Amino acid sequence: TQNYRITLLPGDGIGPEIMAVAVDVLKVAGKKFDIQFEFQEALIGGAAIDATGEPLPSATLDTCRNSDAVLLAAIGGYKWDSLPSNLRPEAGLLGLRAGLGLFANLRPAKILPQLIDASTLKREVVEGVDIMVVRELTGGIYFGKPKGIFATETGEKRGVNTMVYTESEIDRIGRVAFEAARKRSGKLCSVDKANVLEVSQLWRDRITQLSQEYPDIELSHLYVDNAAMQLVRAPKQFDTIVTGNLFGDILSDAAAMLTGSIGMLPSASLGAEGPGVFEPVHGSAPDIAGQDKANPLAQVLSAAMMLRYGLNEPKAADSIEQAVLQVLEQGDRTGDIISPGKNLLGCRAMGNALIVA
Amino acid sequence: TQNYRITLLPGDGIGPEIMAVAVDVLKVAGKKFDIQFEFQEALIGGAAIDATGEPLPSATLDTCRNSDAVLLAAIGGYKWDSLPSNLRPEAGLLGLRAGLGLFANLRPAKILPQLIDASTLKREVVEGVDIMVVRELTGGIYFGKPKGIFATETGEKRGVNTMVYTESEIDRIGRVAFEAARKRSGKLCSVDKANVLEVSQLWRDRITQLSQEYPDIELSHLYVDNAAMQLVRAPKQFDTIVTGNLFGDILSDAAAMLTGSIGMLPSASLGAEGPGVFEPVHGSAPDIAGQDKANPLAQVLSAAMMLRYGLNEPKAADSIEQAVLQVLEQGDRTGDIISPGKNLLGCRAMGNALIVA
Ligand SMILES: CC(C)[C@H](C(=O)O)[C@@H](O)C(=O)O
Ligand SMILES: CC(C)[C@H](C(=O)O)[C@@H](O)C(=O)O
Repeated sequence: TQNYRITLLPGDGIGPEIMAVAVDVLKVAGKKFDIQFEFQEALIGGAAIDATGEPLPSATLDTCRNSDAVLLAAIGGYKWDSLPSNLRPEAGLLGLRAGLGLFANLRPAKILPQLIDASTLKREVVEGVDIMVVRELTGGIYFGKPKGIFATETGEKRGVNTMVYTESEIDRIGRVAFEAARKRSGKLCSVDKANVLEVSQLWRDRITQLSQEYPDIELSHLYVDNAAMQLVRAPKQFDTIVTGNLFGDILSDAAAMLTGSIGMLPSASLGAEGPGVFEPVHGSAPDIAGQDKANPLAQVLSAAMMLRYGLNEPKAADSIEQAVLQVLEQGDRTGDIISPGKNLLGCRAMGNALIVA
Repeated sequence: TQNYRITLLPGDGIGPEIMAVAVDVLKVAGKKFDIQFEFQEALIGGAAIDATGEPLPSATLDTCRNSDAVLLAAIGGYKWDSLPSNLRPEAGLLGLRAGLGLFANLRPAKILPQLIDASTLKREVVEGVDIMVVRELTGGIYFGKPKGIFATETGEKRGVNTMVYTESEIDRIGRVAFEAARKRSGKLCSVDKANVLEVSQLWRDRITQLSQEYPDIELSHLYVDNAAMQLVRAPKQFDTIVTGNLFGDILSDAAAMLTGSIGMLPSASLGAEGPGVFEPVHGSAPDIAGQDKANPLAQVLSAAMMLRYGLNEPKAADSIEQAVLQVLEQGDRTGDIISPGKNLLGCRAMGNALIVA
């Protein structure tokens, strides 16, 4: 029997509901593959603010460090929107990424044949789309200094943030991306703004250098504005994309929306060592929280990514992904992905369907 | 008779071909509305590099300053891609923006009924889309300091750029956007990343403050990642968008691509006083340069924007826009927008069609 200690961070809004489903699904997969999970729960985001005054209590970070992987649901909500930014739920998420050194964020955007009509793009444009965005997650303008709001000599305020990358930061995320591309179709597109930004020039130089170590990978470069355009124009041209923190934030969301069903998309955040964090791309959806309406599939697929990338249990990951495909195949849908002729299920019922699938 | 001195910057690639068409169309409109244009041509981009070694010779900037408006075609090409960045064509464009103080960039993305099938999005999603992106153009990370590639203590390189906005910079672009929204549907969406960036927090604060002066305008705020998503999910929700230089670069291109025909989209760059610059959104398309294949309509519509926003000649602007709609209505198309049953025209033939329209 393999034993894993998993930290659960249900967070806010629909978080607890979708997390409950993911835990059930993990238990079933565990039985099937002789894996024992020890779950420990901790506070983050609004839930942590309400209980402790802080979005990421140090106890939470300790619990996470002391585990094999972290499964996160979603954070945030209107309730905490007016707090100062360092006390808001998002600060907890940024602190978790920094605290665990999670520099590599993997965001797949894959069109599922069963849900292709949910896309706002024409079928022929998105059919077969399968993109992996590799986003740098602990550097760039999210963390660069100086940052803040300062007074100028004339007395007016001046907001400042700094986009910074060092060569070693670029190399480390570059390697993750080249390796990811190698496991996929062998095509990597690096996205920057090297025609304007020096930080992007360094990025492009290093990625180009690095490509000499990966002669089997076909590397291309795009400017971020063009990449945003090409995602809309012809998304099938992309396989693996590597980019910095801010560009990755924007492009991975645009890529996600190509599928039309953001309630289906998981993500993985990995460090050099220590536990990774696995979470859905969607938010905490406070408007439908507690109503058993949420789509738990992105959370369940995040659990599958945890098995694959965090625990190296690909068979258990496969079986969960298969279960998701099967419930979709048999026509089960939550409200966000319903279409005529399909079965409308609540969050829990979808969980039950997965368990028997 | 009204007299205007217009600087023409044909630039590179297809630039000279599409500029020739726009000039012909302007002359026709001038005759009709008793407007006399005095055209003066100057060098920019690759053409300027080849002739003078610099992408923006000071003579060009002088000529521009000494005119009522500047009509720019397109710059850049593979030929100059390996030059150091301060000597590349793009540096000429950035220098022109800074040199003329063009802080406000207006980028309309409007679906034309005749070309709706060119969109990669479903008809019902894009029908009626009419978005105006107001992008700040002389600040933000494009110009902020410090910037450069520096050596760290450990000897590795570190790329740095700085995203900066002062209150007065935000106010000034904010006013342009509120005024633009007032002339349109009265809805303004401000885009930032205030959940992470301090510079965005200042941006959001000032725009919110400013909205008190525009009680008739309905203001909303979106994070840039969500905005990229919403443009793909439901673009009709947007009317006027205001955002910083980098986010505007990305989002205006994504919005442009919703139309499916970037060969149709003009833009205007305006300062507090002095001449504005009017140019198509598309690039210099070096692969089809000199083959009489280019679509001149974005250039012609840029000339119309010049009449409307630069010279305050709305009637002449209307007549040019009407001519464009009419040639589309009668089925005339260049190669980039051709579809079955339509008439394929070259660049010059399209120009002739516009003149008789
Ligand atoms: C909530 C926010 C801080 C976060 C980010 O910008 O990274 C989110 O948008 C994401 O992409 O995970
Ligand atoms: C060519 C480049 C410097 C420019 C920019 O980034 O502003 C272009 O992308 C644009 O949007 O006009």
